[in-house]
Amino acid sequence: MDDNYKKRPESWAIITSEPGPELPLVTVRFDTVRNPRNAKEMRAVVLESPDWVNIVALTPERRLVVVRQYRFGIAAVTTEIPGGLIDPGETHREAAERELREETGHTTSKWTYLGASEPNPAVFNNLIHHWLAEGVEPTHSLEQDDGEDIVVDTMSLDEVRDAVLSGSIRHTLVLAALARIMDLSKG
Amino acid sequence: MDDNYKKRPESWAIITSEPGPELPLVTVRFDTVRNPRNAKEMRAVVLESPDWVNIVALTPERRLVVVRQYRFGIAAVTTEIPGGLIDPGETHREAAERELREETGHTTSKWTYLGASEPNPAVFNNLIHHWLAEGVEPTHSLEQDDGEDIVVDTMSLDEVRDAVLSGSIRHTLVLAALARIMDLSKG
Repeated sequence: MDDNYKKRPESWAIITSEPGPELPLVTVRFDTVRNPRNAKEMRAVVLESPDWVNIVALTPERRLVVVRQYRFGIAAVTTEIPGGLIDPGETHREAAERELREETGHTTSKWTYLGASEPNPAVFNNLIHHWLAEGVEPTHSLEQDDGEDIVVDTMSLDEVRDAVLSGSIRHTLVLAALARIMDLSKG
Repeated sequence: MDDNYKKRPESWAIITSEPGPELPLVTVRFDTVRNPRNAKEMRAVVLESPDWVNIVALTPERRLVVVRQYRFGIAAVTTEIPGGLIDPGETHREAAERELREETGHTTSKWTYLGASEPNPAVFNNLIHHWLAEGVEPTHSLEQDDGEDIVVDTMSLDEVRDAVLSGSIRHTLVLAALARIMDLSKG
Protein backbone atom coordinates (compact mmCIF):
# COMPACT_ATOMS: atom_id res chain seq x y z
CA MET A 1 0.00 0.00 0.00
CA ASP A 2 2.58 2.57 1.09
CA ASP A 3 4.52 1.96 -2.11
CA ASN A 4 1.69 3.58 -4.03
CA TYR A 5 1.61 6.77 -1.96
CA LYS A 6 3.18 10.14 -2.68
CA LYS A 7 4.95 9.10 -5.85
CA ARG A 8 4.48 10.60 -9.26
CA PRO A 9 3.49 8.15 -12.02
CA GLU A 10 5.81 8.11 -15.03
CA SER A 11 4.85 9.16 -18.54
CA TRP A 12 4.13 6.36 -21.03
CA ALA A 13 6.24 5.93 -24.16
CA ILE A 14 4.27 6.39 -27.39
CA ILE A 15 5.48 3.60 -29.70
CA THR A 16 3.38 4.41 -32.78
CA SER A 17 0.72 6.99 -33.58
CA GLU A 18 -1.70 6.50 -36.51
CA PRO A 19 -4.92 8.05 -37.77
CA GLY A 20 -8.19 6.28 -36.89
CA PRO A 21 -11.51 6.24 -38.78
CA GLU A 22 -13.08 9.51 -39.90
CA LEU A 23 -15.72 11.01 -37.62
CA PRO A 24 -17.52 14.37 -37.58
CA LEU A 25 -16.39 16.88 -34.87
CA VAL A 26 -13.25 15.00 -33.81
CA THR A 27 -10.12 13.51 -35.40
CA VAL A 28 -9.55 9.95 -34.20
CA ARG A 29 -5.95 8.87 -33.48
CA PHE A 30 -4.65 5.52 -32.26
CA ASP A 31 -1.49 5.56 -30.13
CA THR A 32 0.34 2.38 -29.20
CA VAL A 33 1.72 3.10 -25.74
CA ARG A 34 3.92 1.24 -23.26
CA ASN A 35 2.93 1.02 -19.58
CA PRO A 36 6.03 1.93 -17.50
CA ARG A 37 4.74 -0.24 -14.63
CA ASN A 38 4.70 -3.55 -16.50
CA ALA A 39 6.22 -2.72 -19.94
CA LYS A 40 3.02 -3.99 -21.60
CA GLU A 41 1.96 -2.30 -24.80
CA MET A 42 -1.63 -1.25 -25.53
CA ARG A 43 -3.56 0.72 -28.11
CA ALA A 44 -5.07 3.95 -26.82
CA VAL A 45 -7.69 5.98 -28.66
CA VAL A 46 -7.35 9.76 -28.66
CA LEU A 47 -10.12 12.11 -29.85
CA GLU A 48 -8.46 15.27 -31.14
CA SER A 49 -10.44 18.50 -31.11
CA PRO A 50 -9.73 22.23 -31.11
CA ASP A 51 -10.23 23.79 -27.68
CA TRP A 52 -13.75 24.75 -26.67
CA VAL A 53 -15.10 27.80 -24.80
CA ASN A 54 -18.15 28.43 -22.68
CA ILE A 55 -19.48 31.62 -21.18
CA VAL A 56 -21.06 32.54 -17.85
CA ALA A 57 -23.00 35.59 -19.08
CA LEU A 58 -24.73 37.80 -16.51
CA THR A 59 -27.20 40.57 -17.30
CA PRO A 60 -26.99 43.92 -15.43
CA GLU A 61 -29.59 42.38 -13.04
CA ARG A 62 -27.15 39.43 -12.47
CA ARG A 63 -29.39 36.93 -14.28
CA LEU A 64 -27.61 34.09 -16.11
CA VAL A 65 -28.17 33.81 -19.88
CA VAL A 66 -28.94 30.18 -20.75
CA VAL A 67 -29.59 28.32 -23.99
CA ARG A 68 -31.97 25.42 -24.39
CA GLN A 69 -31.31 23.03 -27.23
CA TYR A 70 -31.82 19.45 -28.33
CA ARG A 71 -28.62 17.44 -27.84
CA PHE A 72 -27.94 14.47 -30.12
CA GLY A 73 -25.89 12.47 -27.58
CA ILE A 74 -28.66 12.16 -24.99
CA ALA A 75 -31.50 12.79 -27.51
CA ALA A 76 -33.11 15.34 -25.19
CA VAL A 77 -33.28 19.08 -24.58
CA THR A 78 -30.71 20.53 -22.17
CA THR A 79 -30.38 23.84 -20.35
CA GLU A 80 -26.80 25.06 -20.77
CA ILE A 81 -24.67 28.15 -20.99
CA PRO A 82 -23.55 29.31 -24.46
CA GLY A 83 -20.33 27.86 -25.85
CA GLY A 84 -18.68 26.09 -28.73
CA LEU A 85 -15.56 25.35 -30.73
CA ILE A 86 -12.75 27.87 -31.20
CA ASP A 87 -12.44 28.60 -34.93
CA PRO A 88 -9.04 28.53 -36.68
CA GLY A 89 -7.15 31.80 -36.11
CA GLU A 90 -9.42 32.85 -33.25
CA THR A 91 -8.31 33.40 -29.65
CA HIS A 92 -10.49 31.78 -26.99
CA ARG A 93 -11.62 35.23 -25.88
CA GLU A 94 -12.75 36.02 -29.46
CA ALA A 95 -14.54 32.67 -29.65
CA ALA A 96 -16.31 33.41 -26.36
CA GLU A 97 -17.53 36.82 -27.65
CA ARG A 98 -18.64 35.26 -30.94
CA GLU A 99 -20.47 32.30 -29.39
CA LEU A 100 -22.28 34.54 -26.89
CA ARG A 101 -23.41 36.84 -29.71
CA GLU A 102 -24.34 34.09 -32.19
CA GLU A 103 -26.14 31.80 -29.73
CA THR A 104 -27.85 34.43 -27.53
CA GLY A 105 -27.64 37.82 -29.31
CA HIS A 106 -25.99 39.28 -26.19
CA THR A 107 -22.82 41.39 -26.06
CA THR A 108 -20.78 43.28 -23.48
CA SER A 109 -17.32 44.80 -23.10
CA LYS A 110 -16.75 43.38 -19.59
CA TRP A 111 -14.93 40.04 -19.89
CA THR A 112 -13.01 38.09 -17.21
CA TYR A 113 -11.12 34.84 -17.82
CA LEU A 114 -12.13 32.06 -15.42
CA GLY A 115 -9.50 29.47 -16.39
CA ALA A 116 -9.62 26.20 -18.31
CA SER A 117 -10.70 22.61 -17.67
CA GLU A 118 -10.06 19.27 -19.36
CA PRO A 119 -13.31 17.98 -20.92
CA ASN A 120 -12.08 14.37 -20.57
CA PRO A 121 -8.30 13.87 -20.39
CA ALA A 122 -8.65 10.09 -20.77
CA VAL A 123 -9.70 10.42 -24.41
CA PHE A 124 -9.96 14.08 -25.49
CA ASN A 125 -6.77 16.09 -26.08
CA ASN A 126 -8.34 19.52 -25.65
CA LEU A 127 -9.27 22.14 -23.07
CA ILE A 128 -12.42 24.15 -22.48
CA HIS A 129 -11.82 27.80 -21.58
CA HIS A 130 -14.34 29.45 -19.26
CA TRP A 131 -15.19 33.16 -19.56
CA LEU A 132 -17.32 35.45 -17.41
CA ALA A 133 -19.22 38.15 -19.32
CA GLU A 134 -20.88 40.77 -17.13
CA GLY A 135 -23.49 43.39 -17.94
CA VAL A 136 -24.54 41.59 -21.12
CA GLU A 137 -27.41 43.11 -23.14
CA PRO A 138 -29.44 41.74 -26.07
CA THR A 139 -28.05 43.74 -29.00
CA HIS A 140 -28.11 41.32 -31.95
CA SER A 141 -30.30 38.71 -33.58
CA LEU A 142 -29.30 35.09 -33.16
CA GLU A 143 -27.09 33.60 -35.89
CA GLN A 144 -27.84 29.90 -35.83
CA ASP A 145 -26.15 27.25 -37.94
CA ASP A 146 -28.38 24.95 -39.96
CA GLY A 147 -27.67 22.33 -37.28
CA GLU A 148 -28.90 24.45 -34.36
CA ASP A 149 -32.31 25.25 -32.88
CA ILE A 150 -31.64 27.36 -29.81
CA VAL A 151 -34.01 29.01 -27.35
CA VAL A 152 -32.56 31.73 -25.10
CA ASP A 153 -33.67 32.34 -21.54
CA THR A 154 -32.37 33.97 -18.35
CA MET A 155 -32.41 32.63 -14.80
CA SER A 156 -31.64 34.17 -11.42
CA LEU A 157 -28.57 32.72 -9.71
CA ASP A 158 -30.87 31.18 -7.07
CA GLU A 159 -32.80 29.44 -9.86
CA VAL A 160 -29.50 28.27 -11.36
CA ARG A 161 -28.38 26.81 -8.05
CA ASP A 162 -31.73 25.03 -7.59
CA ALA A 163 -31.50 23.68 -11.15
CA VAL A 164 -28.03 22.27 -10.46
CA LEU A 165 -29.11 20.70 -7.15
CA SER A 166 -32.25 19.18 -8.73
CA GLY A 167 -30.29 17.89 -11.73
CA SER A 168 -32.04 19.92 -14.44
CA ILE A 169 -28.67 21.57 -15.24
CA ARG A 170 -26.16 18.73 -15.26
CA HIS A 171 -23.80 19.14 -18.22
CA THR A 172 -20.32 18.72 -16.69
CA LEU A 173 -18.75 21.41 -18.91
CA VAL A 174 -21.40 23.86 -17.70
CA LEU A 175 -20.96 22.83 -14.06
CA ALA A 176 -17.18 23.36 -14.34
CA ALA A 177 -17.81 26.96 -15.46
CA LEU A 178 -20.58 27.74 -12.96
CA ALA A 179 -18.57 26.30 -10.04
CA ARG A 180 -16.01 29.07 -10.63
CA ILE A 181 -18.46 31.83 -9.78
CA MET A 182 -20.89 30.26 -7.28
CA ASP A 183 -21.17 27.62 -4.57
CA LEU A 184 -22.94 24.57 -6.05
CA SER A 185 -22.65 22.36 -2.97
CA LYS A 186 -25.55 21.29 -0.78
CA GLY A 187 -23.72 22.37 2.37
CA MET B 1 -35.20 38.46 -30.14
CA ASP B 2 -38.26 37.97 -27.94
CA ASP B 3 -39.37 35.11 -30.14
CA ASN B 4 -36.44 33.11 -28.85
CA TYR B 5 -37.22 33.64 -25.18
CA LYS B 6 -39.03 31.36 -22.78
CA LYS B 7 -39.93 28.71 -25.32
CA ARG B 8 -38.95 25.09 -25.22
CA PRO B 9 -37.09 23.80 -28.26
CA GLU B 10 -38.68 20.80 -29.95
CA SER B 11 -37.16 17.35 -30.19
CA TRP B 12 -35.55 16.43 -33.52
CA ALA B 13 -36.88 13.51 -35.57
CA ILE B 14 -34.34 10.70 -36.02
CA ILE B 15 -34.65 9.64 -39.68
CA THR B 16 -32.09 6.81 -39.71
CA SER B 17 -29.67 5.39 -37.16
CA GLU B 18 -26.66 3.30 -38.22
CA PRO B 19 -23.48 1.94 -36.66
CA GLY B 20 -20.26 3.91 -37.20
CA PRO B 21 -16.65 2.71 -37.29
CA GLU B 22 -15.32 0.53 -34.48
CA LEU B 23 -13.46 2.29 -31.66
CA PRO B 24 -12.19 1.16 -28.27
CA LEU B 25 -14.18 2.36 -25.21
CA VAL B 26 -17.19 3.68 -27.14
CA THR B 27 -19.68 2.47 -29.75
CA VAL B 28 -20.02 4.96 -32.58
CA ARG B 29 -23.49 5.59 -34.02
CA PHE B 30 -24.58 7.92 -36.83
CA ASP B 31 -28.08 9.38 -36.62
CA THR B 32 -29.62 11.30 -39.50
CA VAL B 33 -31.78 13.91 -37.79
CA ARG B 34 -34.19 16.62 -38.95
CA ASN B 35 -33.98 20.14 -37.49
CA PRO B 36 -37.54 21.20 -36.49
CA ARG B 37 -36.60 24.87 -37.03
CA ASN B 38 -35.73 24.60 -40.74
CA ALA B 39 -36.58 20.96 -41.66
CA LYS B 40 -32.97 20.43 -42.79
CA GLU B 41 -31.47 17.01 -42.30
CA MET B 42 -28.00 16.40 -40.90
CA ARG B 43 -25.83 13.53 -39.73
CA ALA B 44 -25.10 13.52 -36.01
CA VAL B 45 -22.44 11.36 -34.36
CA VAL B 46 -23.29 9.70 -31.05
CA LEU B 47 -20.68 8.02 -28.83
CA GLU B 48 -22.44 5.29 -26.86
CA SER B 49 -20.96 4.22 -23.53
CA PRO B 50 -22.16 2.55 -20.35
CA ASP B 51 -22.61 5.02 -17.49
CA TRP B 52 -19.55 6.00 -15.49
CA VAL B 53 -19.05 6.56 -11.74
CA ASN B 54 -16.63 8.61 -9.70
CA ILE B 55 -16.10 8.78 -5.97
CA VAL B 56 -15.40 11.60 -3.52
CA ALA B 57 -13.68 9.46 -0.85
CA LEU B 58 -12.85 11.07 2.50
CA THR B 59 -10.67 9.52 5.21
CA PRO B 60 -11.73 9.75 8.88
CA GLU B 61 -9.52 12.89 8.98
CA ARG B 62 -11.58 14.33 6.06
CA ARG B 63 -8.70 14.06 3.58
CA LEU B 64 -9.63 13.38 -0.05
CA VAL B 65 -8.26 10.20 -1.66
CA VAL B 66 -6.85 11.07 -5.09
CA VAL B 67 -5.27 9.04 -7.89
CA ARG B 68 -2.49 10.24 -10.12
CA GLN B 69 -2.20 8.62 -13.53
CA TYR B 70 -0.98 9.23 -17.05
CA ARG B 71 -3.90 10.08 -19.34
CA PHE B 72 -3.68 9.21 -23.03
CA GLY B 73 -5.94 12.05 -24.26
CA ILE B 74 -3.76 14.87 -22.94
CA ALA B 75 -0.55 12.73 -22.76
CA ALA B 76 0.16 13.95 -19.24
CA VAL B 77 -0.32 12.94 -15.60
CA THR B 78 -3.51 14.13 -13.90
CA THR B 79 -4.66 14.32 -10.30
CA GLU B 80 -8.20 12.94 -10.13
CA ILE B 81 -10.64 11.14 -7.90
CA PRO B 82 -11.15 7.39 -8.47
CA GLY B 83 -13.78 6.32 -10.99
CA GLY B 84 -14.53 4.26 -14.05
CA LEU B 85 -17.03 2.36 -16.15
CA ILE B 86 -19.99 0.49 -14.69
CA ASP B 87 -19.60 -3.21 -15.56
CA PRO B 88 -22.51 -5.21 -17.03
CA GLY B 89 -24.89 -6.35 -14.28
CA GLU B 90 -23.45 -3.92 -11.75
CA THR B 91 -25.36 -1.08 -10.06
CA HIS B 92 -23.59 2.28 -10.02
CA ARG B 93 -23.21 1.96 -6.24
CA GLU B 94 -21.47 -1.42 -6.70
CA ALA B 95 -19.24 0.07 -9.41
CA ALA B 96 -18.32 2.95 -7.06
CA GLU B 97 -17.34 0.53 -4.27
CA ARG B 98 -15.34 -1.62 -6.71
CA GLU B 99 -13.49 1.27 -8.37
CA LEU B 100 -12.58 2.82 -5.01
CA ARG B 101 -11.22 -0.55 -3.82
CA GLU B 102 -9.41 -1.47 -7.05
CA GLU B 103 -7.87 1.95 -7.74
CA THR B 104 -7.04 3.04 -4.18
CA GLY B 105 -7.33 -0.03 -1.89
CA HIS B 106 -9.79 1.93 0.30
CA THR B 107 -13.16 0.72 1.56
CA THR B 108 -15.95 1.95 3.84
CA SER B 109 -19.58 1.20 4.63
CA LYS B 110 -20.69 4.86 4.59
CA TRP B 111 -21.92 5.76 1.11
CA THR B 112 -24.09 8.72 0.01
CA TYR B 113 -25.33 9.29 -3.54
CA LEU B 114 -24.49 12.76 -4.88
CA GLY B 115 -26.49 12.62 -8.13
CA ALA B 116 -25.51 12.31 -11.79
CA SER B 117 -24.11 14.56 -14.52
CA GLU B 118 -23.92 14.37 -18.31
CA PRO B 119 -20.26 13.97 -19.39
CA ASN B 120 -21.04 15.65 -22.74
CA PRO B 121 -24.68 15.49 -23.91
CA ALA B 122 -23.74 16.81 -27.37
CA VAL B 123 -21.99 13.54 -28.29
CA PHE B 124 -22.02 11.06 -25.38
CA ASN B 125 -25.25 9.25 -24.50
CA ASN B 126 -24.29 8.41 -20.93
CA LEU B 127 -24.29 9.73 -17.36
CA ILE B 128 -21.64 9.83 -14.67
CA HIS B 129 -22.89 9.01 -11.17
CA HIS B 130 -21.18 10.73 -8.26
CA TRP B 131 -20.80 9.00 -4.87
CA LEU B 132 -19.52 10.24 -1.53
CA ALA B 133 -17.63 7.64 0.55
CA GLU B 134 -16.85 8.72 4.11
CA GLY B 135 -14.50 7.24 6.69
CA VAL B 136 -12.58 5.29 4.05
CA GLU B 137 -9.59 3.24 5.23
CA PRO B 138 -6.81 1.47 3.27
CA THR B 139 -7.81 -2.20 3.63
CA HIS B 140 -6.80 -3.80 0.31
CA SER B 141 -3.98 -3.86 -2.20
CA LEU B 142 -4.54 -2.08 -5.48
CA GLU B 143 -5.90 -4.19 -8.36
CA GLN B 144 -4.68 -2.46 -11.47
CA ASP B 145 -5.51 -3.46 -15.04
CA ASP B 146 -2.61 -3.99 -17.42
CA GLY B 147 -3.50 -0.58 -18.86
CA GLU B 148 -3.23 1.30 -15.56
CA ASP B 149 -0.35 2.75 -13.55
CA ILE B 150 -1.92 4.51 -10.60
CA VAL B 151 -0.38 6.33 -7.66
CA VAL B 152 -2.63 7.00 -4.65
CA ASP B 153 -2.38 10.09 -2.47
CA THR B 154 -4.52 12.07 -0.03
CA MET B 155 -5.06 15.83 0.16
CA SER B 156 -6.72 18.11 2.71
CA LEU B 157 -9.86 19.84 1.43
CA ASP B 158 -7.98 23.16 1.57
CA GLU B 159 -5.30 21.65 -0.67
CA VAL B 160 -8.01 20.37 -3.01
CA ARG B 161 -9.61 23.80 -3.25
CA ASP B 162 -6.22 25.42 -3.96
CA ALA B 163 -5.50 22.76 -6.62
CA VAL B 164 -8.82 23.52 -8.34
CA LEU B 165 -8.27 27.29 -8.20
CA SER B 166 -4.69 26.94 -9.53
CA GLY B 167 -5.79 24.53 -12.28
CA SER B 168 -3.78 21.49 -11.16
CA ILE B 169 -7.10 19.62 -10.71
CA ARG B 170 -9.16 20.47 -13.79
CA HIS B 171 -10.85 17.31 -15.09
CA THR B 172 -14.48 18.38 -15.59
CA LEU B 173 -15.90 15.05 -14.38
CA VAL B 174 -13.91 15.46 -11.16
CA LEU B 175 -14.98 19.10 -10.75
CA ALA B 176 -18.64 18.10 -11.17
CA ALA B 177 -18.29 15.64 -8.26
CA LEU B 178 -16.25 17.94 -5.99
CA ALA B 179 -18.61 20.90 -6.56
CA ARG B 180 -21.34 18.83 -4.87
CA ILE B 181 -19.51 18.77 -1.54
CA MET B 182 -17.49 21.99 -1.46
CA ASP B 183 -17.43 25.59 -2.68
CA LEU B 184 -14.99 25.80 -5.63
CA SER B 185 -15.63 29.46 -6.46
CA LYS B 186 -13.13 32.25 -5.96
CA GLY B 187 -15.69 34.40 -4.16
